[in-house]
Amino acid sequence: MAPRRIIGVDIGGTKLLAGALDPQLGVQHRLRRSVLGLDQPALLEALLGAVRDACRGAGGQVEAVGLGVPALMDARSGRAMLAVNLPLAEAPIADLVSERLGLPVFVDNDANLAALAEHRLGAARGFSEAVVLTIGTGIGGGLIIRDSLYRGATGAAAELGHVVIDMDGPRCQGNCPNRGCVEALASGTALAREAARIAAERPDSGLARAAADGRPLTGAVVSELAHDGDGAAIEALALIGTRLGVAIASFVNIFNPQVVVIGGGVIGAGEFLLGPARAELARRALPPSAREVEIRPARFGVEAGMIGAGILALEGLGARERAR
Amino acid sequence: MAPRRIIGVDIGGTKLLAGALDPQLGVQHRLRRSVLGLDQPALLEALLGAVRDACRGAGGQVEAVGLGVPALMDARSGRAMLAVNLPLAEAPIADLVSERLGLPVFVDNDANLAALAEHRLGAARGFSEAVVLTIGTGIGGGLIIRDSLYRGATGAAAELGHVVIDMDGPRCQGNCPNRGCVEALASGTALAREAARIAAERPDSGLARAAADGRPLTGAVVSELAHDGDGAAIEALALIGTRLGVAIASFVNIFNPQVVVIGGGVIGAGEFLLGPARAELARRALPPSAREVEIRPARFGVEAGMIGAGILALEGLGARERAR
Repeated sequence: MAPRRIIGVDIGGTKLLAGALDPQLGVQHRLRRSVLGLDQPALLEALLGAVRDACRGAGGQVEAVGLGVPALMDARSGRAMLAVNLPLAEAPIADLVSERLGLPVFVDNDANLAALAEHRLGAARGFSEAVVLTIGTGIGGGLIIRDSLYRGATGAAAELGHVVIDMDGPRCQGNCPNRGCVEALASGTALAREAARIAAERPDSGLARAAADGRPLTGAVVSELAHDGDGAAIEALALIGTRLGVAIASFVNIFNPQVVVIGGGVIGAGEFLLGPARAELARRALPPSAREVEIRPARFGVEAGMIGAGILALEGLGARERAR
Repeated sequence: MAPRRIIGVDIGGTKLLAGALDPQLGVQHRLRRSVLGLDQPALLEALLGAVRDACRGAGGQVEAVGLGVPALMDARSGRAMLAVNLPLAEAPIADLVSERLGLPVFVDNDANLAALAEHRLGAARGFSEAVVLTIGTGIGGGLIIRDSLYRGATGAAAELGHVVIDMDGPRCQGNCPNRGCVEALASGTALAREAARIAAERPDSGLARAAADGRPLTGAVVSELAHDGDGAAIEALALIGTRLGVAIASFVNIFNPQVVVIGGGVIGAGEFLLGPARAELARRALPPSAREVEIRPARFGVEAGMIGAGILALEGLGARERAR
């Protein structure tokens, strides 16, 4: 019998990542395609092409496809309800892809899938209750409740980046109408903004030199400077970490989880971000929950969504087979 | 066969309420006892006496006792971890009461039990995902997740009053080390504080006259004045309702629930509180979740915890019988 394969695909705002997973969830074949500026038909073709290429690369029999999309999904219809950076709104993407490929397709949002990957194989493995934050341009959230992904009434739950930490704070990003969300104050976008402000205040800093050299103050650049000992970069990360800690204290009081996992581009900063977050959590969370929880960096980086998409498809297929 | 009875008891900071519930969850016999200033042995005796009196009053065969306590419970040990107003800390209260009565005893915190009562019989009935806030001196929280009460890893979850809405806000109350929690800004205590401030600013208002007459500006008094048309009272309730709306927007983004239920002493204000909360929710929550959710007043008032305690015991007993 040919080995069973699952294709996991993570569609981002600028690129998609696809990979073939074996039943042990090892990634057998990876590929990456640009999707920047594509309209919906072109995006669909790029996606189908990537799935076919991953199938060919993997060999064996492909049984199902998992898709991660940067969009709130409606669990009832499989339609994207709110897609920030992609022409997906109102598209029944699972049905479209499934019809074209003749394969079962499972879809969920990228932050949920990152949480699934961390829970099944990563930093949240072995814990029944987990909060997973993916910090990039925005802040994505995923919740593990009683060992399974929590989607709420209609699939829109776990928008953890849109928890208010400062009700009179700045307007949030994208399609969020709120103010003072943790995404507005502690995302990679907020880090870049605060790093630019601190660079202007401290012209002798490495951060200021990087800004003067025209380097974008991304999480990766600020983290690198912090690791090199630049006080301004360390200060910027501590500010973002402290704000994250405020939101984490709320999540810990709400969920009493065993673990909070932090991933995404900013996590390269490691303890420069997590140390201040832990300190703020200790200052703010109720002691019975604060005692139980660990704050851990994510195991998976850019492949978290792709691996989670594969797990989603594998588990979805298993559930269908058991239901027969 | 004698009818099966369950005794539900809600132990508050100043009084306990006990009642006998029939299998249809009707309350057959009610009693109320002061517990103000009692030490732990005296509190235990008062509790045992109330259970025995409720048993006698109800007639029939008492099969189990449910207890609601104003404390964070450790689900593993049945011990109270953090009791704000009662000498319960570290007491294995369920074991103590069970040994003395020779009956199964089930215990949980009062806000969880209010949520259970609202879910099984009240404003959250028929919904799988619900957030229940009980607003009194503090703000208690209960979460219904996939049709059952959510307790987190160790029983300390759903401390929804301790979600931050203003990270630089005032210190919270009691044993909470946090700042700017919704409890610090929108509890009955906060309402009294804001009402006093507004009364001082508006000396011609009904609120100012009530304050001058020495009436405590409780939720009940402020609500009564609002119903009488006093603008200052309406303003105080709108301020608290708006702040509640900020926290509710966070909960709606986190849980994507079908319903948020608001109970406790302040809910006598009705739409004076709920209207501004709904308006703020609409301004802040992500549209896919905001569209799905209803904000409803609680069905149960002061008896919510007692009825929830009875339901806890009835369902706990049922689970034990099925497990045999």
